[in-house]
Amino acid sequence: MTSRLIRIIGLDPGLRRTGWGVIEAEGSRLSYIACGTILPPEGAPMAERLAILHRGLMEVLTLHAPEEAAVEETFVNMNPASTLKLGQARGVVMLAPAQAGLSVAEYAPLLVKKTVVGAGRAEKAQIRMMIGVLLPKATPKTEDAADALAVAITHAHHRGAAALRRAAL
Amino acid sequence: MTSRLIRIIGLDPGLRRTGWGVIEAEGSRLSYIACGTILPPEGAPMAERLAILHRGLMEVLTLHAPEEAAVEETFVNMNPASTLKLGQARGVVMLAPAQAGLSVAEYAPLLVKKTVVGAGRAEKAQIRMMIGVLLPKATPKTEDAADALAVAITHAHHRGAAALRRAAL
Repeated sequence: MTSRLIRIIGLDPGLRRTGWGVIEAEGSRLSYIACGTILPPEGAPMAERLAILHRGLMEVLTLHAPEEAAVEETFVNMNPASTLKLGQARGVVMLAPAQAGLSVAEYAPLLVKKTVVGAGRAEKAQIRMMIGVLLPKATPKTEDAADALAVAITHAHHRGAAALRRAAL
Repeated sequence: MTSRLIRIIGLDPGLRRTGWGVIEAEGSRLSYIACGTILPPEGAPMAERLAILHRGLMEVLTLHAPEEAAVEETFVNMNPASTLKLGQARGVVMLAPAQAGLSVAEYAPLLVKKTVVGAGRAEKAQIRMMIGVLLPKATPKTEDAADALAVAITHAHHRGAAALRRAAL
């Protein structure tokens, strides 16, 4: 089976900081394209912050032209008001790639850690270290950008496994 | 003081049903323009549902050209997963008018009920009845559309009070 080269964007949503990371995958071979963090101004009204987040995402999608998107599923064991706010950012983060015509996959944090580090209880530092191993050229400046790359890697891995299962049928 | 005629959209966000209602206000005089409900298909993937919700909102904003938007603040005393999902819809509902250049005000459910019915503990049926009194031409087909009109009325009332306070300084 030959694997097609695919460009993937991973997204780690947050109202204060949304991380994004773009990679290319060809089978199990991964390469780093770009990553960054979108930081809407904290003092602005909520709707304005969401509009700035959306604009930032659309710029990234236009510039790096990924073909598939993956978003980290969100822990919701925080207070309800924070959950609602995170949900608002997450809605915009899922909307933008859908508007750009991309499929948007969701992965549980546990699966992301297992895929990238090999263990579900991995620390943030271990994820960052493994990003350095899997994507040597990546230099994420924030934890959010590193997490976004980890989600992109997870999607590269699991979309491949799904394709192999289909090929075996 | 002369009051300018202003067109307001009220929004009641939900992932399954988002209500919207457009009114015009000139001081304390209100008139009904339109209302409705956006229903993204429940079976579609989350990102797709959010994109359909966004498209529906943009169509309403283009068609009825409101100048200001108001959104009901959300009760968050439900389970965290539902709160997150509602947040996602709410993010898209706040984003759309901001992208259209509107200011987006938020009002607590208690204030909406107090403004429309005169009591914070009002039942849904009372809100609907008062919508019929305040906007005789309105025929909301869903509770969500009625709630959206109630939020628009609340904004008409409180933005006017704010303007009067400014004029008195």
